[in-house]
Amino acid sequence: LFLPQGNGFPLDSVQDPIKATTEGHWAFIATEGCKEGLGEGGVPGLEVPGPSLVATNAARLRLIAGPEKRLLEMGLRRAQGPDGGLTASTYSYLGGFDSSSNVLAGQLRGVPVAGTLAHSFVTSFSGSEVPPDPMLAPAAGEGPGVDLAAKAQVWLEHVCAHLGLGVQEPHPGERAAFVAYALAFPRAFQGLLDSYSVRRSGLPNFLAVALALGELGYRAVGVRLDSGDLLQQAQEIRKVFRAAAAQFQVPWLESVPIAVSNNIDEEALARLAQEGSEVNVIGIGTSVVTCPQQPSLGCVYKLVAVGGQPRMKLTEDPEKQTLPGSKAAFRLLGSDGSLLMDVLQLAEEPAPQAGQELRVWPPGAQEPCTVRPAQVEPLLRLCLQQGQLCEPLPSLAESRALVQLSLSQLSPQHRRLQSPAQYQVGGRPALSFCPVCPCPYHAHRSPSLLPAGAAGPSGQSVCRGVPLRLGAGLPGNNTNRSLLPTACPVLFVSFVHPAHTHLAPGPPGLGLGWSRESELRWREQEGLHPSESTGPAGLGDSPVLKPEGQ
Amino acid sequence: LFLPQGNGFPLDSVQDPIKATTEGHWAFIATEGCKEGLGEGGVPGLEVPGPSLVATNAARLRLIAGPEKRLLEMGLRRAQGPDGGLTASTYSYLGGFDSSSNVLAGQLRGVPVAGTLAHSFVTSFSGSEVPPDPMLAPAAGEGPGVDLAAKAQVWLEHVCAHLGLGVQEPHPGERAAFVAYALAFPRAFQGLLDSYSVRRSGLPNFLAVALALGELGYRAVGVRLDSGDLLQQAQEIRKVFRAAAAQFQVPWLESVPIAVSNNIDEEALARLAQEGSEVNVIGIGTSVVTCPQQPSLGCVYKLVAVGGQPRMKLTEDPEKQTLPGSKAAFRLLGSDGSLLMDVLQLAEEPAPQAGQELRVWPPGAQEPCTVRPAQVEPLLRLCLQQGQLCEPLPSLAESRALVQLSLSQLSPQHRRLQSPAQYQVGGRPALSFCPVCPCPYHAHRSPSLLPAGAAGPSGQSVCRGVPLRLGAGLPGNNTNRSLLPTACPVLFVSFVHPAHTHLAPGPPGLGLGWSRESELRWREQEGLHPSESTGPAGLGDSPVLKPEGQ
Repeated sequence: LFLPQGNGFPLDSVQDPIKATTEGHWAFIATEGCKEGLGEGGVPGLEVPGPSLVATNAARLRLIAGPEKRLLEMGLRRAQGPDGGLTASTYSYLGGFDSSSNVLAGQLRGVPVAGTLAHSFVTSFSGSEVPPDPMLAPAAGEGPGVDLAAKAQVWLEHVCAHLGLGVQEPHPGERAAFVAYALAFPRAFQGLLDSYSVRRSGLPNFLAVALALGELGYRAVGVRLDSGDLLQQAQEIRKVFRAAAAQFQVPWLESVPIAVSNNIDEEALARLAQEGSEVNVIGIGTSVVTCPQQPSLGCVYKLVAVGGQPRMKLTEDPEKQTLPGSKAAFRLLGSDGSLLMDVLQLAEEPAPQAGQELRVWPPGAQEPCTVRPAQVEPLLRLCLQQGQLCEPLPSLAESRALVQLSLSQLSPQHRRLQSPAQYQVGGRPALSFCPVCPCPYHAHRSPSLLPAGAAGPSGQSVCRGVPLRLGAGLPGNNTNRSLLPTACPVLFVSFVHPAHTHLAPGPPGLGLGWSRESELRWREQEGLHPSESTGPAGLGDSPVLKPEGQ
Repeated sequence: LFLPQGNGFPLDSVQDPIKATTEGHWAFIATEGCKEGLGEGGVPGLEVPGPSLVATNAARLRLIAGPEKRLLEMGLRRAQGPDGGLTASTYSYLGGFDSSSNVLAGQLRGVPVAGTLAHSFVTSFSGSEVPPDPMLAPAAGEGPGVDLAAKAQVWLEHVCAHLGLGVQEPHPGERAAFVAYALAFPRAFQGLLDSYSVRRSGLPNFLAVALALGELGYRAVGVRLDSGDLLQQAQEIRKVFRAAAAQFQVPWLESVPIAVSNNIDEEALARLAQEGSEVNVIGIGTSVVTCPQQPSLGCVYKLVAVGGQPRMKLTEDPEKQTLPGSKAAFRLLGSDGSLLMDVLQLAEEPAPQAGQELRVWPPGAQEPCTVRPAQVEPLLRLCLQQGQLCEPLPSLAESRALVQLSLSQLSPQHRRLQSPAQYQVGGRPALSFCPVCPCPYHAHRSPSLLPAGAAGPSGQSVCRGVPLRLGAGLPGNNTNRSLLPTACPVLFVSFVHPAHTHLAPGPPGLGLGWSRESELRWREQEGLHPSESTGPAGLGDSPVLKPEGQ
């Protein structure tokens, strides 16, 4: 649910209470999360698919990587422009990444930022540069400074002798870049090793500068590889680190983190995360930001009730029909805490009770079955009442932690990413009848409008037709085309934090769903006549709104 | 080239001149557009892939639709959050769409906005509502107002008799919604026809309200279909419009635009745009916004020179190596204006001259060939000099017009979207040698660092190895994985307009590539010691930047 509170959206004009899943909880796509009263389109009612998709994708990647590897999102340049990059960075973090290279996401949204140096930084040095000030003070702050470039040159000879390389082989420009970086960031020194050659240049240059820094009490924080066989190189580099740590008696060198990047997708990640891998940090850009396996998530907003009265859309496509009436959703658990199923029911029905039998229609069944849950958890929480948030929104980091907790509660057969077992989302029998018959559709007695097959030969109502759909799959709209590639659960982003959109204030929604007062205020700002209807441009040519500065 | 001028980026700190292609011109991906001096990552140097991808994708869809169909972008809810949606809407328009349903893109960026009503608006009415004021004055402003709801009810009887429907069949709630919409926007009335049943409800309700409005001098602007067989329904609706226009003597009804939407992709679009189709407006969301055929565009920034001195990256992957030296690019044309090829050369070489022979390496060739262009167009224009824009940025609409003009100049075999002929991008021979040998790489005499195969058995230099790559494909980085699905040209967005990002001001790029003055100003704002290095977090845990409010 998108509540752009800081963006001119008059939250207090939303009179209906709003329920949503807790941020960070997984859900299956058919679970109804929105309540009546907010529209899509003109009113910014549902902007969660992009954030939910990125968060889910990031969670998939985290499941593949396992809990130990550090995942660094670095997809800004592949995102939907600088604006879309902020969304991608924010929700990659929520989904389970550790940090982002997007410094603006760090400043604006509190995402931990991390990164390494760029190839252009390394290649910008030729080796003939003279550092403005090559002197570096010891980490402890005591004692005289030393010339880091000169010290690195001394160490280079030791390192090359140890590695069996000629001292002329490592690129002097690369070493100058490392020295410059180390002078600027002595406590965060790292090397990007593959600008010229990892084995013959990047690695010896890194070791020379890291050992020079080490003499002053600073410890290098890592190396990065961006080409070639990343897993194989990581194993070799770890061996070199161990041997050099022994040779030069600097134990910390053994465990310097090795970071890798280079178009890493799920398959490549699985290889890098395999047992025995010496890779510690994995940078992922395109694959997390653009979700290439499924680049969109088909969430839609549908009206199910107005003022307590159910509403239903029929349409020309049976799968686009909606289930009328406000719903509630519950998670049923066994006595061992295992997940039995989620159930959808009418909001006014009594909630399922622990220990009591419940009749539900599981997906695919022709008849309802009986289930006796040992525990029952409501999936929707009241978030907004009378235009006020019911509780403070969780922080990004809190939601991120909940993602991992809630995914850990999902059973392995549902959590696995390839061919997972189908999670059961059932409907309670009352959903198969119109909650108030004659329903708003039947009320005007047009059985001839029923889509083919919805009414049985005995004149069954459209309401009675619903279980056929419920039985055939998950209830709700657009279910079949919306699941992620392997039907894994979706991490629904319930709230796009007010602080997480930094758009300039927009106009109200053109009179649809907005209070007359809001519209009048906007008309006054825009210099429009209070009663003049600008209206949507519809299918005509004229733009409704003037761009800034015109 | 991303120049976030209004975003705290000190444009005047960019001392190097910057060249780019003219906004709206197509180019093939290997053409080098950026010059030395700006980095990626820490410095927001290259944020064009997302905008370029969306613009290219929109242009593909425009090519399929042909020039007559109106294309409406409606993908906000599938974009990368509300922020990414602005990018998507802006560059869909630049690529050839007519309008967007994103009203904020209209207000902030001047994109023409258009849209239709939502199903939730239609289903929110039951038919029992009483309009607060059902009276509508005639369009000409003279004469008394009439009760539109009552007049629509009278027309409904005529329409149902004409269509052979019972007057009870059309849904009264749908008709109430149409009347409410028409009262609010009498000059932009349109009907969304498929909430219940197009033929038995939406169409007669639309006709009743449109004919009632027509009596008052207003003309309906369109209908929309969102389910079922869109092409077939459009043909049927057009027939009904024609018959009703004759029956009720309202000729304008014949040509009321028919709009369609519903997960339309390239294949569906081709069918809807076929000859004889009665569809006038096509709404596309997910397919234009997320580019499902290729969800990312692999542009990268690489340093090729510093201070006039060429720079080169070798890496562990031959295809990630770069061509050293600043380049210029030209388009060669025949005497009939046909495109011969684009050529890349060193910036300091003399430009190709019309009528003079030129030696170039075409892609795939083992030897250079000779070409004599009748016309020569430089592809790069000087955009920024001494930190100042050389000419005003074109408006979005101007760039959009240039997109269509420049694509029309591409020959049909290069423009076709399936299996297009390969466009020739060649390199002039000087590219095959290091521009200043001993080059920065050779200068320190490490031939052993050459990647396998780059040096010939006779000790050829790395520079001489380059033509092998040039001959094997397009020059430049990441060419193979970056082309759109069918190798069509890419519309490079050269400038992300300063006005087209609405991010809050960010911090400078952590001292890399920024002037010391900028950094000091930032440090002062942030309360940091002028000499204290916060540095990138590197691979460590600590975020560099504090989130807002902490």
